[in-house]
Amino acid sequence: MLDRIAGPEDVKKLGRREQQLLAKEIRRYLVSHVSKTGGHLSSNLGVVELTIALHGVFTSPADKIIWDVGHQCYAHKILTGRKDRMGTIRQFHGLSGFPKPSESPHDHFQTGHSSTSISVALGMAKARDLRGDGSHVVAVIGDGALTGGMAYEAMNNAGQMKTDLIVVLNDNQMSISKNVGGMALYLDSIRTGSVYRVIKADVEKALKRIPWVGEKVHDLAVSMKNGLKQVLVPGMFFEELGFTYLGPVDGHDMEQLHTVLEQAESVAGPVLVHVKTVKGKGYRHAEADPMKYHGTKPFEPQSGQVPASPQGGQGYSEVFGRCLTELAREDGKVVAITAAMTDGTGLEPFAHAFPERFFDVGIAEQHGVAFAAGLACEGYKPVFAVYSTFLQRAYDQLVHDVCIQELPVVLAVDRAGLVGEDGETHQGVFDVSFLNQMPNMTVMAPADGRELEAALAFALSGTARPKGPVAIRYPRGTAPFREEVAPIVYGRMEVLAKGEGVALVFVGSMMETALELQRRLVRTGIRPTLVNARFIKPLDMELLESLCRNHHTMVVLEENQVIGGLGSEILRRLNEGGFEKTCRIAIYGIQDRFVEHGDRKSLLQLLDLDPDSIWEDLQKKWKVDAHGG
Amino acid sequence: MLDRIAGPEDVKKLGRREQQLLAKEIRRYLVSHVSKTGGHLSSNLGVVELTIALHGVFTSPADKIIWDVGHQCYAHKILTGRKDRMGTIRQFHGLSGFPKPSESPHDHFQTGHSSTSISVALGMAKARDLRGDGSHVVAVIGDGALTGGMAYEAMNNAGQMKTDLIVVLNDNQMSISKNVGGMALYLDSIRTGSVYRVIKADVEKALKRIPWVGEKVHDLAVSMKNGLKQVLVPGMFFEELGFTYLGPVDGHDMEQLHTVLEQAESVAGPVLVHVKTVKGKGYRHAEADPMKYHGTKPFEPQSGQVPASPQGGQGYSEVFGRCLTELAREDGKVVAITAAMTDGTGLEPFAHAFPERFFDVGIAEQHGVAFAAGLACEGYKPVFAVYSTFLQRAYDQLVHDVCIQELPVVLAVDRAGLVGEDGETHQGVFDVSFLNQMPNMTVMAPADGRELEAALAFALSGTARPKGPVAIRYPRGTAPFREEVAPIVYGRMEVLAKGEGVALVFVGSMMETALELQRRLVRTGIRPTLVNARFIKPLDMELLESLCRNHHTMVVLEENQVIGGLGSEILRRLNEGGFEKTCRIAIYGIQDRFVEHGDRKSLLQLLDLDPDSIWEDLQKKWKVDAHGG
Repeated sequence: MLDRIAGPEDVKKLGRREQQLLAKEIRRYLVSHVSKTGGHLSSNLGVVELTIALHGVFTSPADKIIWDVGHQCYAHKILTGRKDRMGTIRQFHGLSGFPKPSESPHDHFQTGHSSTSISVALGMAKARDLRGDGSHVVAVIGDGALTGGMAYEAMNNAGQMKTDLIVVLNDNQMSISKNVGGMALYLDSIRTGSVYRVIKADVEKALKRIPWVGEKVHDLAVSMKNGLKQVLVPGMFFEELGFTYLGPVDGHDMEQLHTVLEQAESVAGPVLVHVKTVKGKGYRHAEADPMKYHGTKPFEPQSGQVPASPQGGQGYSEVFGRCLTELAREDGKVVAITAAMTDGTGLEPFAHAFPERFFDVGIAEQHGVAFAAGLACEGYKPVFAVYSTFLQRAYDQLVHDVCIQELPVVLAVDRAGLVGEDGETHQGVFDVSFLNQMPNMTVMAPADGRELEAALAFALSGTARPKGPVAIRYPRGTAPFREEVAPIVYGRMEVLAKGEGVALVFVGSMMETALELQRRLVRTGIRPTLVNARFIKPLDMELLESLCRNHHTMVVLEENQVIGGLGSEILRRLNEGGFEKTCRIAIYGIQDRFVEHGDRKSLLQLLDLDPDSIWEDLQKKWKVDAHGG
Repeated sequence: MLDRIAGPEDVKKLGRREQQLLAKEIRRYLVSHVSKTGGHLSSNLGVVELTIALHGVFTSPADKIIWDVGHQCYAHKILTGRKDRMGTIRQFHGLSGFPKPSESPHDHFQTGHSSTSISVALGMAKARDLRGDGSHVVAVIGDGALTGGMAYEAMNNAGQMKTDLIVVLNDNQMSISKNVGGMALYLDSIRTGSVYRVIKADVEKALKRIPWVGEKVHDLAVSMKNGLKQVLVPGMFFEELGFTYLGPVDGHDMEQLHTVLEQAESVAGPVLVHVKTVKGKGYRHAEADPMKYHGTKPFEPQSGQVPASPQGGQGYSEVFGRCLTELAREDGKVVAITAAMTDGTGLEPFAHAFPERFFDVGIAEQHGVAFAAGLACEGYKPVFAVYSTFLQRAYDQLVHDVCIQELPVVLAVDRAGLVGEDGETHQGVFDVSFLNQMPNMTVMAPADGRELEAALAFALSGTARPKGPVAIRYPRGTAPFREEVAPIVYGRMEVLAKGEGVALVFVGSMMETALELQRRLVRTGIRPTLVNARFIKPLDMELLESLCRNHHTMVVLEENQVIGGLGSEILRRLNEGGFEKTCRIAIYGIQDRFVEHGDRKSLLQLLDLDPDSIWEDLQKKWKVDAHGG
């Protein structure tokens, strides 16, 4: 069946039974490929029928389908001519794991972060209105993404605009983990039909009590029905915002899906189609534990087993979660916050040990930060664990609700630096720049697991820490563990080796590269000074100035956008004192560009941030040799 | 009456009639003071009774009242011991126009931006739960602020947490201008009781049709009432999120307010109290035109007349709005977006001329940017006009939804630089830094009205403009108009005077300072080069390098955080080429600090950014003289 599908027009040619078969084949195809490449499995298995039905009813690319978050677009990619490249998904120079307009005319918008689709779709719908054609715009959004305020902002706006717009609510009761919040409870009551059933039963019971059944009662019933229709429909929340609510329907029933989508197509104004799906559907291991296969490494398809990472060791997130739990045991003021990322950020043990001090606020980074600010005001020590790329959502809250009042919120900035396979929407390469520019912010970057533990203890300590917020950034992946790290002193960098000529100053994850450059320099006869920046803000000016006095070249290594990064700020501060005149500053970071998906090694090479490229540049451009170039 | 109120405890001692009198006195006091100092009038007049009732029922500071946005806190300040300082409000070293914890223990959180209060209050409520005392936390939020997604994120979270929390919805049907969105329509239907009335009428009509009235029908009616209670209450939207809804009540009726707040105090879990108020209440000019007195300059209290600005001339916002309207007349693809700031951003004429191409998305900057991205995808030319400080809310959407795909969204960044009287929450001093760090972003800063017009035409032109987004930042206040400005060429700075020794490079609003420094230098015998940066990104490296070759000192003047600002980036780029060795770079901007409220002149002095301070520093530190220091 799959071989007959060259593009979405071929989906339309199939009968329902054939579409059902196609769904089966796509599922097999997905499991077979993702088990080899890794990737997002559960969410993709959940929307196979929905994707087929969308392409069955609508006509892409004239009609537009916007996939919120976007990691559920694999079936869409398969149906829109990219079947044969699925083996390359998320790999360097391969297919993206997210919709990407540069890849296909059927990908109308690049997504990655949550809750953007309704806004984008509404913009496209308004453009359609101005143009005056009759095309359709469909946003497909999960119930998890619906906890993000931006989705609500868009619904609020759409509700008044009355533009034709179809929002498909893909309701699987999950973000990455179980979805939370009042909305989740509400959707649950719709799903189970509890509100509706209670009322219906009450009405029927009351009618039965009336001893005669006749025209009058029929009249009554009809009148009641008309009058109450709008309050009895299960989607009042959406109706109240100005949407027509349709559903809920079974998202794995092709017939129901076609019926409701065709209905949605014909309704004027904004429509919300409530589709109930099962995350991981059709692959029993994923159905049983959808979180495990949300974003998975390659696995053995038969048993579902994900082989342990060959290098072993603990991930940074795991180190963080364990350490925070230990610290919380000794300090009752420590509380933890996640935005729907309990597992990803390593907070599972904390949540287990201290359920009353653990808060999953939903996909809601803005709220998460201000919520932390409220807790901090009252003497608690909130730790907000969040991926670097998602913290971008809370830029304003950090400035406005935390930094102005110098509140002691701790930010555990996970996945800082390159994250690899998720690509440009997910790289954590702006946090140093945006945190650096916030007054009263302290920014730390531990270089290994042990230092992360120390940084966390420091940030939550009583007196040694500064007054305001402390951000601790650390990368994705396995944490190295050094034998020992120097005790943390506020605002002091860690000198790992004292040398001469060249000073290597690195940020966190660039330690390995710095060590390799050190080795190469030593081979050339230069014994460089090696410094772990540790504190990105405030800067250790005493040390940096002394490095300037005693070295001819300072090399700054960071896995962050160079604009506004550590190197840039070192340069600015040294310039204030005239120090950069005596010592050259060579800055290596990401050169003002977005970074596509791929494995870390390929990406570092692409960015000229691998040891070979840096070494070459140091020799060619900076003519680094024992005599100072 | 007012003289008897030393603190909120005194409010409690008053009877209802006395409280009504107090309200009258406060109103007179407000009009009398704000007419002299300027400030937020309409919103403060609207909440006088509400403020009295809150302090009558709750006990601050043990109970906490969080004022969303915060510009409606004047009556609160008057009642909490700051009455005698009201004459200093918003003035340098005077009272802040917003709640400020450093000012009073009754100000529990500093606010300024919209929609933060529920998050903060929820954090405080959770801290209260952990602590285990019985205090109350109250968030007071306007219906305008309720269009911000963050408020919804917080409600969604609170709805599940079941924590005791009181949200007072101050519903005046306004943001600064008329409130928009599905929520506004919904609140309107509650206010008028239309949904409830329709249903009630239907039920009654149906019951009347039944020929006999007896026990059975009574049973039926009771049963219906029970079954339908939860769907008949007007606040289902909030109930569905997990809140208990109380109201709506008349926000100017002291008795109703006390009753409902006491009721709220006794309800377990999150409660939403819907209070209907009239913006500008009790001052007829403000009631008639609340927008005019939202944030007002001093005015004549009797007639309500606001004297025309003595210096005359057009404000930047006005120039922008007029120019955009003209451009839109010639180009049907131009569309304009505002986040509840039609008047403030100067878009009134555009909205009037092109209603179908004008979009007020509500207080929803995140959505506004992604909505613009959707329009841009479809070939339209969206211009999002937004204050610099509020654009911070959309940091992630700019990176993720606009820059990655290089979408031609135009950002009209109004109120960039110091804004004066609104203080630290509103200063637009981060935009250069955060826009600069975004790949594919173009950042422009016109130095006068004529250049703003040219920049806007450039950004909306067909071929000369770059591919991606263009941000144009311009300050608050009156726009100077030069005789002529050099034609805009992408990425080229504007050289206003060629000289030697010293090069002055300034950003937009710093032109005046640069001209004054030029005059002083000329008097010292130095004829400096004078450059209007115009393009902050990309940098005009050709010019900057040539300046380095021909000058001993480059002075960069910017009204922005120095970290990640223009000077910092110039330095970084020159360092890449080794150019900064031959020319010293002196950077003047805001030194990594928040800037309190006050008039522009006082603030520039405070920041050492006035001509005298810069001149002194140039002489002392940089020893600028004709021979190069």
